[in-house]
Amino acid sequence: MSSPIRVAVTGARGRMGSEAVAAVQAAPDLELVAALGRGDDRAAAEGADVLVDLTVPDQVMDNLEWALARGMHVVTGTTGWTEERLAQLGSWQAASRRPDGRPANVLVATNFGLGPVLIMVLAAKVAKFFESAEIVEMHHPAKVDAPSGSAIRTAKIIAAARAEAGLGPGPDATTQELPGARGAVVDGIHVHAVRSRGLTAHQEVVFGGPGEILTLRDDTFDRSAYMPGLLIGIRQVASRPGVTVGLEHYLDLD
Amino acid sequence: MSSPIRVAVTGARGRMGSEAVAAVQAAPDLELVAALGRGDDRAAAEGADVLVDLTVPDQVMDNLEWALARGMHVVTGTTGWTEERLAQLGSWQAASRRPDGRPANVLVATNFGLGPVLIMVLAAKVAKFFESAEIVEMHHPAKVDAPSGSAIRTAKIIAAARAEAGLGPGPDATTQELPGARGAVVDGIHVHAVRSRGLTAHQEVVFGGPGEILTLRDDTFDRSAYMPGLLIGIRQVASRPGVTVGLEHYLDLD
Amino acid sequence: MSSPIRVAVTGARGRMGSEAVAAVQAAPDLELVAALGRGDDRAAAEGADVLVDLTVPDQVMDNLEWALARGMHVVTGTTGWTEERLAQLGSWQAASRRPDGRPANVLVATNFGLGPVLIMVLAAKVAKFFESAEIVEMHHPAKVDAPSGSAIRTAKIIAAARAEAGLGPGPDATTQELPGARGAVVDGIHVHAVRSRGLTAHQEVVFGGPGEILTLRDDTFDRSAYMPGLLIGIRQVASRPGVTVGLEHYLDLD
Amino acid sequence: MSSPIRVAVTGARGRMGSEAVAAVQAAPDLELVAALGRGDDRAAAEGADVLVDLTVPDQVMDNLEWALARGMHVVTGTTGWTEERLAQLGSWQAASRRPDGRPANVLVATNFGLGPVLIMVLAAKVAKFFESAEIVEMHHPAKVDAPSGSAIRTAKIIAAARAEAGLGPGPDATTQELPGARGAVVDGIHVHAVRSRGLTAHQEVVFGGPGEILTLRDDTFDRSAYMPGLLIGIRQVASRPGVTVGLEHYLDLD
Repeated sequence: MSSPIRVAVTGARGRMGSEAVAAVQAAPDLELVAALGRGDDRAAAEGADVLVDLTVPDQVMDNLEWALARGMHVVTGTTGWTEERLAQLGSWQAASRRPDGRPANVLVATNFGLGPVLIMVLAAKVAKFFESAEIVEMHHPAKVDAPSGSAIRTAKIIAAARAEAGLGPGPDATTQELPGARGAVVDGIHVHAVRSRGLTAHQEVVFGGPGEILTLRDDTFDRSAYMPGLLIGIRQVASRPGVTVGLEHYLDLD
Repeated sequence: MSSPIRVAVTGARGRMGSEAVAAVQAAPDLELVAALGRGDDRAAAEGADVLVDLTVPDQVMDNLEWALARGMHVVTGTTGWTEERLAQLGSWQAASRRPDGRPANVLVATNFGLGPVLIMVLAAKVAKFFESAEIVEMHHPAKVDAPSGSAIRTAKIIAAARAEAGLGPGPDATTQELPGARGAVVDGIHVHAVRSRGLTAHQEVVFGGPGEILTLRDDTFDRSAYMPGLLIGIRQVASRPGVTVGLEHYLDLD
Repeated sequence: MSSPIRVAVTGARGRMGSEAVAAVQAAPDLELVAALGRGDDRAAAEGADVLVDLTVPDQVMDNLEWALARGMHVVTGTTGWTEERLAQLGSWQAASRRPDGRPANVLVATNFGLGPVLIMVLAAKVAKFFESAEIVEMHHPAKVDAPSGSAIRTAKIIAAARAEAGLGPGPDATTQELPGARGAVVDGIHVHAVRSRGLTAHQEVVFGGPGEILTLRDDTFDRSAYMPGLLIGIRQVASRPGVTVGLEHYLDLD
Repeated sequence: MSSPIRVAVTGARGRMGSEAVAAVQAAPDLELVAALGRGDDRAAAEGADVLVDLTVPDQVMDNLEWALARGMHVVTGTTGWTEERLAQLGSWQAASRRPDGRPANVLVATNFGLGPVLIMVLAAKVAKFFESAEIVEMHHPAKVDAPSGSAIRTAKIIAAARAEAGLGPGPDATTQELPGARGAVVDGIHVHAVRSRGLTAHQEVVFGGPGEILTLRDDTFDRSAYMPGLLIGIRQVASRPGVTVGLEHYLDLD
């Protein structure tokens, strides 16, 4: 058996971070070398193979610069990425050096849930086969945005796949509509957002053709759902050159 | 065994009508005495116990006046009922006489689907127990109205039950909404309308409380779905005095 | 405003008990007077209007005898009820005296989830309308029994309603079956049990007639789902004479 | 615009065949040159680019030999394929000659439904990511086999993907089971078969990991569902060399 991957976590006292620390500790092929919160000395993380950053937008850049300067691979689930930030990250990555002289690698993923990521990838693959496509997402009532960012991204992916296949708008004879009944329209795709006590995060993509419906549905019940995807990131970052944006690129679904 | 109920059908060559004729013929306790289309002589229907009218708004009043004047019970699924029409119908019914000297009875039902009717009745019963309630209806893309009339009625029923129980609006922190994402709002209840090739008529009512969801769902795939409800109407109209509006009153769900 | 209902909880340090203590404390019309664990002195509970017992079978009888001897109403969610135990409970209840001279009341409920209880009540009401009825229950993979007790009770309730309506077995032409494919058969109703990581406790009752399906579905995600039902019990026990077995009798669904 | 593809249909008076004839006639890029039933003279089909065979096992081989001997491409949805028959078909195909001197091509597909085929392909892709996987298929009550052939194939595909990924059996603590509750077991995958009036053909694949569920669902409501897949076969057979078994190989999902 090969030696374990040495992992340091920043943002380790946050909700995602503490879950990540536990997941790394529970994995026999991973070794936790440091679990750092805001203000902790990063020296403890030196010598890690992979830095897992689960902090906030005002800390992530500093952590990633520090880690890449030391030749660590980086996996981050922190949000707030702009073109400018990604460009900066790219230059740090290009200048980084592993002990073997090659650059370190980076995975930037704003969603480590396998379900939501798979829904997007699968939807992109099948969209061209169906005349109709709509999205119903359902979330807890404390959510402030509707539709969810994930549903918007899924709609855009479906719209792009339809355009590439030469599909026009889906059939819809609606002429009498109570305002909002047909949902929000994202690049031509209708998206409906349900909010209810009891729900967490759920998404249903409904594809329809003559005489048939294909439904892809994801239910995320709690934060533990993000751990399998995070572990895939940690285990694979060493073999995925460069800066990768989006967990889907690590899933080998093509 | 008692003698069969003698049934005449008007509108017998329409889509609902021909389905009804077949259903009456297949029922061992019913006897079809006449199946009349537009322009056919109604004399053939004389002596029926029950007239089933499945015509159109410009024929129904004439048929019902004729039947009640002859002391027949009436079951009608024709649409277009107004307060005025119902009042007229009420006066004909009150003046009607069965062979036993009592008035004939009338069932007016614009939906004979057991599923949609049961969803409304059940939703009314359970609404008071849940903080949240939303409706997602899904129909074929040739439908011109959104949401469906059935979904609007269900929303109103839920809203009334919530008001009676002293429930305010469901929790919803949405502050950033793409227009339409949260659906149409009917008496405070959010209603979402999906349109897709492959669908027929489907409705889902989602109730939510802390840690749980209760879902009531109806799928109607074709016109045969209306026959069990129509047969209930035919079999029970003799024992339900007066004019009844809505199949739900024949279902004894209380 | 009337004075709050004074509530004592036994089994207060268990998982259900601690959740119940928090729910009582959060309710403006309830006052927590004692939260007792195993070995705590029950004197602190004297003067409560309602004892909520959430202990275990070897403690519950002693607690209920004690409370009823002091004229407290009792709500218990503890399991292990036999005919003999219920008879004993009945005699204690009959002998109990409230300050007004009438006996105290008791609610015994082994499931305080509104969803599961409502599914049973609604299924009993609608079963007579459909030729077919099957149950699919889905639970977490640590569950040792299949199907769930709740699904078995629901199947029995449906079977009884079908028998009362004179319905025979549902249509089923299966002649080539891989063993188990058609599920377990409980009083003639087919029940299927799915076990999967990620699930908690879910039940779907599928009713089918020509051209239509009616589905009743309950999803329970965590223990908080039992609190609304428990609070209904606490609030209503004073006005429900005698010993009541089953939360459904407090829900006024008829 | 290129000239239309010339299509002949054998088995044209059967249920699938008559649907296929209508679909070919409705497609602007296809031209129906012959619609043949049992006993009709096949001379009318000469000169077709593609023969669509929707007959029965005792006619298909004769039709395919005839068509390949004339250099026509073949798309067949007829069932009853054995290793021996496929070998015979392969030799006819290898010996066939198109006008350009290359062999004609063949598509053998026992299911032209895009939904069922896509479910299998997608399930194969995602199975490796989830600890648990179960199948619930739901069909009309006249079906004689349980589970459906499609569900069995899907289970085998999932089992193979799990084995390749080194996944053992899914977690399942069941020790008290009513016989059949946990379904049929196909290569370690539990498969549940619901039969109900009102249903047609439906399949749900439930994948579960910590805190999340991914569901793939297909609903087939009527035979029109097979036409989009059949048209894909007709349009692509000219560019897919050799004998292909399974529509999935024409869908370019990799």
